[in-house]
Amino acid sequence: MFKKVLIANRGEIAVRIIRALRELNVSSVAVYSTADADAQYVNLADEAVCIGGPQPADSYLNMQNIVSAAVLTGAEAIHPGYGFLSENEEFAELCETCHITFIGPKPATISLMGNKANARAQMQAGNVPVIPGSTGFLKDEADAVKVASEVGYPVMLKAASGGGGKGIRRVKNEGEMREAYQSATKEAQLSFGDQRMYLEKIIAPAKHIEVQVFADQFGHVTAFPERDCSLQRRQQKVLELSPCPVMNEQERQELQAIAIRATKTIKYLNTGTIEFLMDSNHHFYFMEMNTRIQVEHPITEAVSGIDLVKEQVRVASGEALSFEQADLKPHGFAVEARVNAEDPAMDFMPQAGVVKQLKLPGGPGIRVDSGIQAGDMISPFYDSMIVKIIAHANTYHEALKKLIEALDEFELDGIAANQSFLEALLADPVVQQGTATTDYVTKQFMSKFNKHVVREVS
Amino acid sequence: MFKKVLIANRGEIAVRIIRALRELNVSSVAVYSTADADAQYVNLADEAVCIGGPQPADSYLNMQNIVSAAVLTGAEAIHPGYGFLSENEEFAELCETCHITFIGPKPATISLMGNKANARAQMQAGNVPVIPGSTGFLKDEADAVKVASEVGYPVMLKAASGGGGKGIRRVKNEGEMREAYQSATKEAQLSFGDQRMYLEKIIAPAKHIEVQVFADQFGHVTAFPERDCSLQRRQQKVLELSPCPVMNEQERQELQAIAIRATKTIKYLNTGTIEFLMDSNHHFYFMEMNTRIQVEHPITEAVSGIDLVKEQVRVASGEALSFEQADLKPHGFAVEARVNAEDPAMDFMPQAGVVKQLKLPGGPGIRVDSGIQAGDMISPFYDSMIVKIIAHANTYHEALKKLIEALDEFELDGIAANQSFLEALLADPVVQQGTATTDYVTKQFMSKFNKHVVREVS
Repeated sequence: MFKKVLIANRGEIAVRIIRALRELNVSSVAVYSTADADAQYVNLADEAVCIGGPQPADSYLNMQNIVSAAVLTGAEAIHPGYGFLSENEEFAELCETCHITFIGPKPATISLMGNKANARAQMQAGNVPVIPGSTGFLKDEADAVKVASEVGYPVMLKAASGGGGKGIRRVKNEGEMREAYQSATKEAQLSFGDQRMYLEKIIAPAKHIEVQVFADQFGHVTAFPERDCSLQRRQQKVLELSPCPVMNEQERQELQAIAIRATKTIKYLNTGTIEFLMDSNHHFYFMEMNTRIQVEHPITEAVSGIDLVKEQVRVASGEALSFEQADLKPHGFAVEARVNAEDPAMDFMPQAGVVKQLKLPGGPGIRVDSGIQAGDMISPFYDSMIVKIIAHANTYHEALKKLIEALDEFELDGIAANQSFLEALLADPVVQQGTATTDYVTKQFMSKFNKHVVREVS
Repeated sequence: MFKKVLIANRGEIAVRIIRALRELNVSSVAVYSTADADAQYVNLADEAVCIGGPQPADSYLNMQNIVSAAVLTGAEAIHPGYGFLSENEEFAELCETCHITFIGPKPATISLMGNKANARAQMQAGNVPVIPGSTGFLKDEADAVKVASEVGYPVMLKAASGGGGKGIRRVKNEGEMREAYQSATKEAQLSFGDQRMYLEKIIAPAKHIEVQVFADQFGHVTAFPERDCSLQRRQQKVLELSPCPVMNEQERQELQAIAIRATKTIKYLNTGTIEFLMDSNHHFYFMEMNTRIQVEHPITEAVSGIDLVKEQVRVASGEALSFEQADLKPHGFAVEARVNAEDPAMDFMPQAGVVKQLKLPGGPGIRVDSGIQAGDMISPFYDSMIVKIIAHANTYHEALKKLIEALDEFELDGIAANQSFLEALLADPVVQQGTATTDYVTKQFMSKFNKHVVREVS
């Protein structure tokens, strides 16, 4: 086991990782920007190193400063958390070069899964169902028209090196395709220096179903009970459920088998999440893989009883997995709410300011993962997600009810947050049924909620 | 199910019960003394009624005011929590008379288990192993000598109606018995108007092992995995463990069978706890039964996944148990620490004052049951136990470590509390082995700890 690990992150996930290290008797090194000098995670760590100014590029994305901090303090490994450098193969490589263990998969795996066209091709080769579409890259416009008519419109035309919404087009018919192909390739060339394109059929309505996988260097590969992350607003998950309330045990096993196949195909190491779409016939299609710990990992910890972060550290240090596939039956249901410092009455505008008072909920089945404390300044430089509340109970409805009550108890004074939105969503009939698909919040729930917000404000 | 329930208690257990009621969609009525007007549980309840001044006799022990508050607000049931009126058969009877459901066993059961000599006789009749000693009451001094020599000295001579340390004598030999019998009977007559005596062999060293039982009106009787509450200071539990780290599955099943037999013998309804001594040969002896929810119930909830308080309310409302004996296999280990407002450096003197700041621990496997919030006044009128922290993990050692770290994160400013004592005890080698007996803290640990405290202070 490592003696000392550096956490290349901030906020609640840094607190989460430091807690795991403390329990493992591993010393922790926090890194912080000048905006985070008094943050909870900095106080909780055994050592802390300032790595730059508040802009992420100057600190949490500053690879050299972070690796220097690790070398300086004698940290043997770096845990990247989520976001920032967690899926940056260059950073993982820099760690390797400096003989520091990057707690995650190999750089080549990060790179492979980072290119979505390559990831798709690799999964197809490994007999993992992908969204119907092109095999490899499209040759030209004519090829795009041919493939689209084979899989059926509407389709999504995507740049192979894409990201951030660039080089991507929703195409409804052949007429649109010709124009879309030309403009998207130009945009992709300008944005990424790579005009290669692929296309996928649009599967809608669909649920976003994801599977946490875990593999060690001894060939053990496991897949956890799935998470249903269909409740999204502007592509951001807002509530996550585990297991999916409308999947049965046979479907669960089928999906886990697919996830294990996918993990083996790419010789994945440590933990990651494979994201799938599930259509109305409960067929699964590979979307992408996140090669890091995710925000919503606590619901999997709740239903499995496995501490994923401790396990990440153990496996990265060379240990074998501490559990087997047979141990991963789901126990009850867990639901996570992301409390964001954003104002639902002002179109969810992110809020900055001082937390005057903070009252956390508690009691049976309630877990709180917070990165803030009373007196803290919520800075405008970082993600607005500040606290996660997780409820675990024997049934899906009990878990939802428990989370509503916990959100109701939660008090954050001095800064607006989204509790009212989360509570309304948890109480919504479609959410209570467990049938919501990825478009539900945007297309149906928001109009109901906005009416309610307007009434409350007026 | 009830529409409205009154909670005849305060502090953390009132918060705990109100949370359960909210999840069950049952309205809650808090009662409070003038000292508790701004307490967290009062704010959390749907309604609140002031029942008198800060002295317990004027408010939380004031049966008439409490029952009046229930009648006034239309509450159909009363949850008594622990302490105060929770084991008072007169109060349970008064509730019955006023057609209010007392959430607990029948008044006659409370009465039967309240008299320890009767409880002992009843258990003997039901083939439950009791501590070797007299059968029924002692006839006279000669009978006491005869029984004591049969079971072997040392013995404990006890008044049948005893309590509060009156009419009780530790007797080492026959010479001491004659004098002890005379003085104890006189004291018992003076204190309780009842000079009847019984005696029990002293089982030492022993572990305090207790079993939560649950029975409904349909004849279902269940027993949970045991709790090991051997870590006590001045007869007060300080840390509780579940399951007992040194009992095996066969012993667990044997003990559960005894507990179920005891529960059936007295036709017990709802939940309660049967306390046993376990000697060095792992033989069990009935000590007494608590006919109410206990402070340490959360560790049983953690390892069983059953919400005991919700279940109390459901069963009292006429529902059948929601689980079966086969569901009650322990999952992992749970440990609870009682955070008391008392100063270890001043011989654990209870502290009163204002809580300036409160920082609660969180993360995986940590449950906090608190009755206080920042800004609260800790009053001198009530029990000093203010917060419970419960850690749940896959192994006993992981649970201990998790609890140490959580106590280390916990911050209470403005008032002294016992975290340093709890952390030192959790880290103690004998506690780590799980072998501590009821005399361990007093006879061995305290001298080590006091040296440490003195060093810290000087």
